[in-house]
Amino acid sequence: MSEESGGRGAAGARQGPLAGVRILDLSAVVSGPMATMVLADQGADVIKVEPPRHGDEARQLANYRNGMAGLYLTSNHEKRSIGINLKKPEGKALFDELLKTSDVIVSNWRPGTAERLGLGEADVREINPEIVYAAVVGYGDDGPYADRRGYDPIFQALTGYVSAQLNPEIPIPDLVRHAVIDKATAYTLAQGITAALLARERGAPGQSVRVTMLDAGIAFFWPDGMLRHCMVGDDVANPMVPGERYTLTPTKDGQIVFWASTADQMQGTLRAVGREDLANSRRHQGKALIEPANMEERVTAVAEGLARMETRDAYAALVEEQVPVAPILSQTEVLEDPQIVHNGTIVEATHPIYGRYRRVRPAARFSETKFEMTKPAPMYSEDADAILEELGHDAEARKTLRAQGVIPD
Amino acid sequence: MSEESGGRGAAGARQGPLAGVRILDLSAVVSGPMATMVLADQGADVIKVEPPRHGDEARQLANYRNGMAGLYLTSNHEKRSIGINLKKPEGKALFDELLKTSDVIVSNWRPGTAERLGLGEADVREINPEIVYAAVVGYGDDGPYADRRGYDPIFQALTGYVSAQLNPEIPIPDLVRHAVIDKATAYTLAQGITAALLARERGAPGQSVRVTMLDAGIAFFWPDGMLRHCMVGDDVANPMVPGERYTLTPTKDGQIVFWASTADQMQGTLRAVGREDLANSRRHQGKALIEPANMEERVTAVAEGLARMETRDAYAALVEEQVPVAPILSQTEVLEDPQIVHNGTIVEATHPIYGRYRRVRPAARFSETKFEMTKPAPMYSEDADAILEELGHDAEARKTLRAQGVIPD
Repeated sequence: MSEESGGRGAAGARQGPLAGVRILDLSAVVSGPMATMVLADQGADVIKVEPPRHGDEARQLANYRNGMAGLYLTSNHEKRSIGINLKKPEGKALFDELLKTSDVIVSNWRPGTAERLGLGEADVREINPEIVYAAVVGYGDDGPYADRRGYDPIFQALTGYVSAQLNPEIPIPDLVRHAVIDKATAYTLAQGITAALLARERGAPGQSVRVTMLDAGIAFFWPDGMLRHCMVGDDVANPMVPGERYTLTPTKDGQIVFWASTADQMQGTLRAVGREDLANSRRHQGKALIEPANMEERVTAVAEGLARMETRDAYAALVEEQVPVAPILSQTEVLEDPQIVHNGTIVEATHPIYGRYRRVRPAARFSETKFEMTKPAPMYSEDADAILEELGHDAEARKTLRAQGVIPD
Repeated sequence: MSEESGGRGAAGARQGPLAGVRILDLSAVVSGPMATMVLADQGADVIKVEPPRHGDEARQLANYRNGMAGLYLTSNHEKRSIGINLKKPEGKALFDELLKTSDVIVSNWRPGTAERLGLGEADVREINPEIVYAAVVGYGDDGPYADRRGYDPIFQALTGYVSAQLNPEIPIPDLVRHAVIDKATAYTLAQGITAALLARERGAPGQSVRVTMLDAGIAFFWPDGMLRHCMVGDDVANPMVPGERYTLTPTKDGQIVFWASTADQMQGTLRAVGREDLANSRRHQGKALIEPANMEERVTAVAEGLARMETRDAYAALVEEQVPVAPILSQTEVLEDPQIVHNGTIVEATHPIYGRYRRVRPAARFSETKFEMTKPAPMYSEDADAILEELGHDAEARKTLRAQGVIPD
């Protein structure tokens, strides 16, 4: 695991393709914050404007140490934090100063909340006409569920993820056990904001980008998950969904995942379990490979063979035969996998307050506008003084703002 | 379900934030094609250059009708297709003509393949110095697994998705039963390409954007999935992962998903099952709500109550109490959900060759550079004549290219 400088770091001269872009981030928990972290990781100056007292509610969730919480930590690297009480006129005035200097504003409230706070698109555009106005909503701006609060597992039930997660061997359905729709929404929003910035750079006006979690969940699931419904009618041949064939194959001491899709790989599975006789048989060459009886013979032979092998031996034999294969790594083993270590995917560093932590390098790597990790997730309102200084509020003015309860002590 | 014009449509004057951007897409199956579909859905002119005879191998997979396959259909809307034999010098020359007019080139081969085809970054940059060179690789450009073929379920085993998918009630692990890492990779690439275009527009050189599926899988999983590993050390308080609490609750005739995270919602679950007595008790007010004994009392009471209710009644009662809740929709029911229908998320249309099909509207909606769906996924090399005409190859020249086997008949 590689090491970065850690510490608090300055957000001064930032590298990355989004260097020079300023984003005012009012969003909380996962769908908004993870989107703006993608952009912060590419050099955008993301100023997280957090509500009074406790800030983003993700700061109240689990995995604490010294005032930092896990979910906030993992979704807010490279950002700056300032607490502002937007319900005070002085707070709103301060926010408007920031708004004037920003390229993007992001929120993930329920429909109508922004307008109630005086932060609807029309309000914001009066202060900054060319801003990109980005918002996540749960179900839709209107419609029968628009006023409901949305959470990831609820969307999973509504969009087919749960019904697809029916393991045929058990068989009961399950949820995807992480916030897959929150995160698909975040990635959709990050790309949408970037596209709106590109369009603006090429002459389009500043505009709104809205992502509905329900829609984003369906769009992410659809390409392979809804294959049975992409053509309408009863005359579709060979209806099949790859995910329905996803399976863990038992070994003597556990389970293994392999995926043999070419003729070589199919024959390789037989060789890996010592069935050269079958691998060389005519029944497992050319078109005969996919005849149902031969497939069944092969699947049975491979299952029987693997069930007699230790996982480590099965893995080695399948790798040797160039069959795509992996052991099932525990989360601790993920941290130590040789390729993951080689890639420098996971970085360990130390923050002066919350101590040693791990983060992930962004997966998109740019050859010219390179990313440099400088700043771990901020403590609540940690950057208030620096941000206000940039706006020209000197120490005396900041003291007044604190005395007025506009920013936290 | 709304209706679009369907038909083949022209890719002429395109709307969307990426209008005016041309992308040469050499990628196949899911991770590359889904990325370029995001960009095509935003107005980019994506020219899919497909290999001779059968094109993208996704055209060989399941769910066929009249020469169109499901996985190709769902990942290639709004693109144009031309088959070119890149191994013939005339084919490579034709490709280079397209390259000169393009802003982005995308591939998802194993490391080294592009170079063997004369399409490595250095080769491409000789023809078009300012191009964005985008590539997906499986495990990494180098490192112990670099030469292996990567498939989604293999990456799921290596990156913690499978170990997280352990349903505590069964308990055996499972895979996420759709290509979640392929798709996270696609979204990462789509955003990365857009960011590189933005940087270029703002003065940076054309550059490469590389996404490794292994890394993209970890980055997508990490923020909530790896919460137990984001802080290093044994002194982390209240280690908890939301996904571990994801559960389906049995009703009299099925199961239901609800998510009560505020005091009101927790009390609402009790009222929904007729336990006003508990909802009003001091044990379920304020801080007492999260005392373990009271939580257990509440969970048990709600489980017992829901187990006696039909799913439809349980759903109605929880909605009435403003508790986030959903029934588990089958894929067919997803198509008919009132909010999904209201949003116009799923669109039905007819193609003159492959007939009626469904597609999904892009989840990012722009107020100014609006998307208009015009073109369903193309038949193999369907747009060869139009593309060659634009390059100035007249009917006679195209006849020669066909006779030479450079483009298909």
